[in-house]
Amino acid sequence: MSKLDEAVQIRESLAAELFDQLRESTHDGVGITRASYGEGEQFAHSLIADTATELGLEVTRDAARNTFMTLAGADRSAPAVIVGSHLDSVAQGGNFDGAAGVIAGLVVAAAMRDAGMTPARDLKVMGIRAEEGEWFGVSYIGSRSALGLLPEEALDGARRADTGRTLREHMHQMGCDPDAILTGEPSLPPASAHGFIEIHIEQGPVLDEMAIPIGLVTGVRGNSRLPNARCTGEFSHCGGVPRSHRRDAVAAVAELVTRLDDTWSECERLGKDFAFTVGKLSTDAAQHAMSKIAGAVDFTLDMRSVDGLVLTEMEDRVREMADDIGHRRSVEFDLGDFIRVEPGVLSPRMREELSEASATLGVRTMEIASGASHDAAAFAAAGVPSAMLFIRNANGSHNPHEAMALSDFTTAARVLARWLAHSA
Amino acid sequence: MSKLDEAVQIRESLAAELFDQLRESTHDGVGITRASYGEGEQFAHSLIADTATELGLEVTRDAARNTFMTLAGADRSAPAVIVGSHLDSVAQGGNFDGAAGVIAGLVVAAAMRDAGMTPARDLKVMGIRAEEGEWFGVSYIGSRSALGLLPEEALDGARRADTGRTLREHMHQMGCDPDAILTGEPSLPPASAHGFIEIHIEQGPVLDEMAIPIGLVTGVRGNSRLPNARCTGEFSHCGGVPRSHRRDAVAAVAELVTRLDDTWSECERLGKDFAFTVGKLSTDAAQHAMSKIAGAVDFTLDMRSVDGLVLTEMEDRVREMADDIGHRRSVEFDLGDFIRVEPGVLSPRMREELSEASATLGVRTMEIASGASHDAAAFAAAGVPSAMLFIRNANGSHNPHEAMALSDFTTAARVLARWLAHSA
Repeated sequence: MSKLDEAVQIRESLAAELFDQLRESTHDGVGITRASYGEGEQFAHSLIADTATELGLEVTRDAARNTFMTLAGADRSAPAVIVGSHLDSVAQGGNFDGAAGVIAGLVVAAAMRDAGMTPARDLKVMGIRAEEGEWFGVSYIGSRSALGLLPEEALDGARRADTGRTLREHMHQMGCDPDAILTGEPSLPPASAHGFIEIHIEQGPVLDEMAIPIGLVTGVRGNSRLPNARCTGEFSHCGGVPRSHRRDAVAAVAELVTRLDDTWSECERLGKDFAFTVGKLSTDAAQHAMSKIAGAVDFTLDMRSVDGLVLTEMEDRVREMADDIGHRRSVEFDLGDFIRVEPGVLSPRMREELSEASATLGVRTMEIASGASHDAAAFAAAGVPSAMLFIRNANGSHNPHEAMALSDFTTAARVLARWLAHSA
Repeated sequence: MSKLDEAVQIRESLAAELFDQLRESTHDGVGITRASYGEGEQFAHSLIADTATELGLEVTRDAARNTFMTLAGADRSAPAVIVGSHLDSVAQGGNFDGAAGVIAGLVVAAAMRDAGMTPARDLKVMGIRAEEGEWFGVSYIGSRSALGLLPEEALDGARRADTGRTLREHMHQMGCDPDAILTGEPSLPPASAHGFIEIHIEQGPVLDEMAIPIGLVTGVRGNSRLPNARCTGEFSHCGGVPRSHRRDAVAAVAELVTRLDDTWSECERLGKDFAFTVGKLSTDAAQHAMSKIAGAVDFTLDMRSVDGLVLTEMEDRVREMADDIGHRRSVEFDLGDFIRVEPGVLSPRMREELSEASATLGVRTMEIASGASHDAAAFAAAGVPSAMLFIRNANGSHNPHEAMALSDFTTAARVLARWLAHSA
C-alpha cells in the first residue's frame, strides 16, 4: 500500500467527523435541509472552510460565495485540478448528496499533506453553492457563477420556492456580490481549470445491486423542466354538472401524466434514454373541496435524457398532448417555457485514467450513466474536461435514507488520490 | 292573480335584502365562505332568525342549533310542513346554494301572514346546519341531528378540514348540546313531519340550457366518498432511479383517475348513472420537489349515482384498480372506508302536486334528477315524504359565479306558496 493510499485511509476519521457535524447541525427533524443560500448551506460552507484552514489549505470565496480550498502545487501557474461538489441539499434530503464530493476533496488534500506530497499543479477543493434545482428552479447556480456563465435573468427572475424572494436577495443576504457575478472576472475561467472531478453518491440502486462500490460515470443526463405548470378548468359542483360540461383540471393532468408514462414505456422498448417525473402536483388548497370539480392544478415536470434530441422531441410531445387534452376537456394548460439543461459529455480520457487508478488499487468499478444532474455537467458544458465517480448507495437520494458506507466513500477518495498523484 | 301570489311577489324585496346582507357579511374576497359551525354560517342563522322574529314567526333552536321559524297553523297538533335548506357553504362558494331554500320559506311565510292566511298545519321554515360535506366529511349533519339519525361516531370522529378540530368541539363552540343530539328527543321526529320541501339552485346547466326556470326533482343521487385517501410510494431522486424501481405515487394516482374516467365513459355508453370527482389531490408539500419522485399523494374521491347498485359496483372497482396499480407500481393505496349515502327517493305525490301548482301559475317546469346531495335525501331516508324544486342557474355551484335570477327565485316561492295553500 502506498504512503498516500494509507494516508487517505487514516483520514477516514476526518470524513466521519465532518459528516456527523453536518448531519447534526442541518437536521430538520425528518432529514437534512440545506437550502440554496440558506442557513444549512451556510453552515456547511463555514464548517468546510474552517476545517480547510486548520488543515493548512488556502481558503478563498468568490462573488457567489463558492468556497475554494487550495493545496498549492509545484507549478502554481499551471491550470488547477478542481475537485468539488455542492453543499446544499433538497428539503428533507440526505446528508451525503453533494457533501461527499467536497469532503472527499478535503480528505485527499489532507492526505497529500500528511504524506508530504506536493501535487504537480494546484488542487482546488470547491464547495459549490446552490446546485439543487428545487430551490430556485435554476440549474448550477454556483458552478455557472464561478465559470462566468450564470444567465443574467436568473438573479431577479428566479425566486426561492420556500421564501418567494429572488436569487439576488438571497445572495445579498449571504454576502455575495451579485453584480460582480455577471460583470466581473469569473473566479474560475474555464481555461484556468485542467480538469474537474466530482465524487457523488449514486442516486439509484444500480451499483448496490451489482455489488460494485464505485461507478465511472459515462455522461450526465440533461433535463428539460417546467417548474410552474398550471392547468386551469372551472370549479363547480361535482354532482350537478354533466360529464360533457365539466372542466376538470385533475382529470386533465392525470391524463397528461398517464400518457407521458405510456410514452416512457415506448421509449424503453425503442431503447431511447428518457425519464420523467411530476414531483409536485396539487389542487388549489384555497378553493378545492371533496365535492367540487377542481378548477386549477399546479404541477411540475422534469424530463431527462442523455440525448438532447430526445429532450427536444419530448418537449414537443408534451405541448401536443396538452393542446389535445386541453381541447377535449375544455381546460387550459399554461406550461410556461421549458428550462433546458443540455446533457453533460464527460471526458473519456479522465474516465480511462480513473479506471486505471481503480484497477491498480484493486477496486471494482463499472461504467454507469448519471440519471441526475450534477455540477460536472456545467463544467463539461464550459469546456473543462470533467469526470465523475459514483459511490454506491442502496436507498436513492433526495430522501433521508441515503445509505453510503464510509468504507465505500474512502475507496472513492483513494481512487481520486491515486489519479491526482499519477495522472493530474 | 291570487292574493297570496301577489303577496309573494311583493316580498321579493325581502329576499333581495337578505341575499345582499348574506353576501356582504360572508364574502371572503373571492366568493362566499360559511363553514359548517363556523362564523359565516352562524351569521346566516342569526340574520334569518332575527328576520323571522320581526316577521312574527316563532323562532326556536335545537341541540344542533338548527333554526326553526314557525308560522302557526290552524291545527297545531297536526304534523307540520317543513320548508328548508342549509345555511352553510363550501369555501369560496356562491351565495345562493342552500340559502335560497331558507329565504324562500321565510318569503312564503311572510306572504301568508301579509295575505292574512293561516295554513292548515304549522309551516316550519328550517335553517339547517352543516350540509356541505367538505367541512367534516359527514353528510347531512344538521338534518340528521334534527331527525335523531346522526351516527354516534361523527361527533368525535369527524374533524373540520380547515381547523382539524372535532365536530363536537365546533358544536360546543356554537352553543350546541352534542350529547343531547345523540341521546335526547329529536327536535324533528320523522312522524312529526307531514312533508319536507327544499328549494335549491340547480348545480348544473340543464334548466338554463332548456330555458325552463323551475325543475321538479325526481330523485337525489347518493354518493360514496373517500375523504382521506392516500397513496404511498417512496421519495427518491427523479433522475437516478430506473423505471422498474420507482415507487411514484403521482403516476399511480394519475392512472387510477384515468382508469376511473374510462369507466365513466363506459357507464355513459351503457346508460348507467355515474359521476366521479377527485376534488382534492396533492403531493406532500413538506417533502415534494420538482426533482423528487413523489412518495406520497393525498386525494379525495366522490362518486355519485341515483342507483345504489352502481355505487356498490364502483366501490368494488376502485378497490380492484387500487390493488392492481399498487401491485404493479410498488405503491400502497390506503383508501380508508367508503362513506356511503344512499340515493334519495323523493315523493311522486308531492312532485305531482307541485307540477299542478306550477301549471296553475303558468310556470314552465321539467323533471330533473339531482346530481348533488341535498338534505331532502336525509328526510326521504327517514321516511318523510320529500320534494325538491330546482331554480335554474347557468354557472353551476360551489363557485362564486352562481347566477340565479331573483325573478326565478320568486317563481319558485310562488309555486311553493300555491302548493302550501292548496295541497298541504
